[in-house]
Amino acid sequence: MKEQQQREAATALLFSVSDANFRAVEIQCLKKMESHPKNVGILAMEVYFPTTCVQQGALETFDGASKGKYTIGLGQDCMTFCTDLEDVISMSLTVVTSLLEKYAIDPMQIGRLEVGSETVIDKSKSIKTWLMWIFEKCGNTEIEGVDSTNACYGGTAALFNCVNWVESSSWDGRYGLVVSTDSAVYAEGPARPTGGAAAIAMLIGPNAPIAFENKYRGTHMAHAYDFYKPDLASEYPVVDGKLSQNCYLMALDSCYNRFCNKFKKRDGRQFSLLDADYVALHSPYNKLVQKSFARLFFNDFLRHASSVGSNIQEKLEPYAGLSEEESYSSRELEKVSQQVAKPLYDAKVQPSTFLPKQVGNMYTASLYAALASIIHNKHGSLKGQRVLMFSYGSGLASTMFSLKIREGQHPFTVSNIAEVMNLQSKLDSRHEFAPEDFVDNLKLMETRYGAKDFVSYSQHDFLRPGTFYLTKVDSMYRRFYAQKLISPNDNCGEPKLANGIKHY
Amino acid sequence: MKEQQQREAATALLFSVSDANFRAVEIQCLKKMESHPKNVGILAMEVYFPTTCVQQGALETFDGASKGKYTIGLGQDCMTFCTDLEDVISMSLTVVTSLLEKYAIDPMQIGRLEVGSETVIDKSKSIKTWLMWIFEKCGNTEIEGVDSTNACYGGTAALFNCVNWVESSSWDGRYGLVVSTDSAVYAEGPARPTGGAAAIAMLIGPNAPIAFENKYRGTHMAHAYDFYKPDLASEYPVVDGKLSQNCYLMALDSCYNRFCNKFKKRDGRQFSLLDADYVALHSPYNKLVQKSFARLFFNDFLRHASSVGSNIQEKLEPYAGLSEEESYSSRELEKVSQQVAKPLYDAKVQPSTFLPKQVGNMYTASLYAALASIIHNKHGSLKGQRVLMFSYGSGLASTMFSLKIREGQHPFTVSNIAEVMNLQSKLDSRHEFAPEDFVDNLKLMETRYGAKDFVSYSQHDFLRPGTFYLTKVDSMYRRFYAQKLISPNDNCGEPKLANGIKHY
Repeated sequence: MKEQQQREAATALLFSVSDANFRAVEIQCLKKMESHPKNVGILAMEVYFPTTCVQQGALETFDGASKGKYTIGLGQDCMTFCTDLEDVISMSLTVVTSLLEKYAIDPMQIGRLEVGSETVIDKSKSIKTWLMWIFEKCGNTEIEGVDSTNACYGGTAALFNCVNWVESSSWDGRYGLVVSTDSAVYAEGPARPTGGAAAIAMLIGPNAPIAFENKYRGTHMAHAYDFYKPDLASEYPVVDGKLSQNCYLMALDSCYNRFCNKFKKRDGRQFSLLDADYVALHSPYNKLVQKSFARLFFNDFLRHASSVGSNIQEKLEPYAGLSEEESYSSRELEKVSQQVAKPLYDAKVQPSTFLPKQVGNMYTASLYAALASIIHNKHGSLKGQRVLMFSYGSGLASTMFSLKIREGQHPFTVSNIAEVMNLQSKLDSRHEFAPEDFVDNLKLMETRYGAKDFVSYSQHDFLRPGTFYLTKVDSMYRRFYAQKLISPNDNCGEPKLANGIKHY
Repeated sequence: MKEQQQREAATALLFSVSDANFRAVEIQCLKKMESHPKNVGILAMEVYFPTTCVQQGALETFDGASKGKYTIGLGQDCMTFCTDLEDVISMSLTVVTSLLEKYAIDPMQIGRLEVGSETVIDKSKSIKTWLMWIFEKCGNTEIEGVDSTNACYGGTAALFNCVNWVESSSWDGRYGLVVSTDSAVYAEGPARPTGGAAAIAMLIGPNAPIAFENKYRGTHMAHAYDFYKPDLASEYPVVDGKLSQNCYLMALDSCYNRFCNKFKKRDGRQFSLLDADYVALHSPYNKLVQKSFARLFFNDFLRHASSVGSNIQEKLEPYAGLSEEESYSSRELEKVSQQVAKPLYDAKVQPSTFLPKQVGNMYTASLYAALASIIHNKHGSLKGQRVLMFSYGSGLASTMFSLKIREGQHPFTVSNIAEVMNLQSKLDSRHEFAPEDFVDNLKLMETRYGAKDFVSYSQHDFLRPGTFYLTKVDSMYRRFYAQKLISPNDNCGEPKLANGIKHY
């Protein structure tokens, strides 16, 4: 009704102007629509994680855990961690520098830079300001954006902010850049094997090969104490494992429900998992991703969606009457739904689990490591496909959204992104630590967190060329970083000291 | 040239379609332009600050400082602070609840909520998630946005994000809500009198009485250690006072320069301070605001802008040849430029200094307290006027931007905002503490920062009705808040406990 009125009003307006004006308005109008950025999304990606890692199999033996507790129970293969040479600042310096170089992006062309992280090195100074060093030396200090914080959700918040900026009237035509980075470490106990460390950089702009489908977004936010960091002097979080998992699954249900409703409203038909070619879920550990996908499948069953065939319906029927609360705690439902969802899981989810299983929980970077894994595994056949994404941060903030893969233009194509990220080679060049050395490193890091007046002393051998690393923290807590030479010829004379960052 | 080509292409396209299609395209086009939100900005504001305060005059005597050191040297009159009953979470709960009530906003109509703060209570869980309690009880959990962090700039980042969201394709038609909140406290020493505490909430949407002029924005970001919080266990920052002031002034120059360039590019003429009816500057203490405005005036002089008459030019001429570095440290220039800028300062800046001088540095809320002061003082005559805003956060992030005051529609008018904020009455109902009690309170707060397992014990008498306050923090660091009764009849039976927040 309202639309009809609008249409009539517009038509009346049109016929009231002279023909010449009419053309002028039309041209202006088309120009405006043309200039409005379309298919805004991720143009380019780069992934960085430390080379230092520990095998989950070795760790479970060392911890005296039952065989398979970490590798099958959690579903994790390996875990990356920072030595005292690396932190979220150094990892971000590395990944941003690498992205700019590998895609040949002029640093002057960055108009916005945002960081999502829950690893706090300073409570006031944003990680983004440390990254300004890269841009200041090129003369670019006009870069909007700061850090976004809420547990593992900060990267998604930064990404949405950046995409919105490109679509807003304050966009100045330059690229946005988002960095998701965290170092996830836990106190001794059951959560310790669910750590990880990484930084992922994403270049944002229009006509992207990985474009946002903004209108389907489903968000769920609430107040919860499932995982938080109230002990300010400690790097370790306070975790309620069971509550955390329940909050995650409830948020997943709510977001999926909202996503499906919006899809139906706009597309006039029901959404099912068959409408997603790939599904990337925030991955604290792989087992939760398996459970979560089964939960989405159970949702499809409850909504009588097309993804659930009649033979499967029969198997899930006994659980149709469970209350929501019961359905979260029913082991039987968990088992059966995972079984029946398995073929779809293998096709749609498994390709996303590559990096999260190898590197561990990267908090804000975790979901984007899943996306990177899909690109790594499937870049040749992604065109036109939809990736369903679920971002979750304890506390809690969560969103389900979707991306559409497009052809793009070199260097902004998924094939080139896969080549640049070069994940397999990065994984192959890692250095395995014995569990006891991993634990010793954590003990060292406990003394370094929030500390001043120290010099880092781990071996540089483990760093790949081009990696930034912490050299020292002075008596005023100022942090000094250097970059490992890419080749011996890079060293043009004396090391340079720039604004607290040493650069060879 | 490119524009000409675009125009021709558009015309060719137009004439290639049939008349019927032509009309259809045009109608669609007009509809799109009509539905695009215009004049996005601040629809409504509410300001909260604790009633507990200390007079700067009394404090300078108590500290044994020379007479006028705080009141004239810093230019501050009074300083508000939190007792153990209040923190950034309670202040935010209070200000958001009050805004929703006073403007009769249905909590379901909030689609995005963001908090800007540098006061860290939890390093992972955002302040925004605590505020979700207000919305969850009304059934609204679909609210995007988390916390933005970089010193005093976080509120501006949150505000820009919210405005961009309204202008983006992911806007769902609901309101955005931004909260800027901080409790600024300093260790014993020269910075202690530059504290303050407040929370300011701003409702965001189209057709706003306080609209953004997005195209003139000038941003400057860099890596600096002028003020930061690396000692994680302490609430106090590390401050380099001199560097901090220099960084602020350099950032101001850079932002103003960029702002003026953009203005000239779009409007085809030079910007001068005469083009701003009011100027609101981030206010760590009033003296820096005085210096900063004089600096802007000196910039106008160097650019030969119309704001500087020939008699004033003569007075500033001796300093025209100073290097940038020299100009920052020249006491003489500082004095002369403040003298000659005085008439403009009194007209354009002084109305913004009301709240910052009375409440102190509110970090992220400081700039918006200046805006609130302008509205408080001038709401009757603001229509059509431009407010120039300068946001600065150490580390560093800074932006100059401008707002245009429009008529608006009740309840979203500047007059109604002034009435709702009711600043004078809030200031009049404060409770002055003796300096020794203020210092005792800070000592108590030192033991409470990052602590668990305690019950708050300050007097509730000092809280205004409707104020939220902390009742206890349990052994798991979970925080419990209650709301002081607005009237005795509000207490309908037993106190309710909702998700860690107790509500009477």
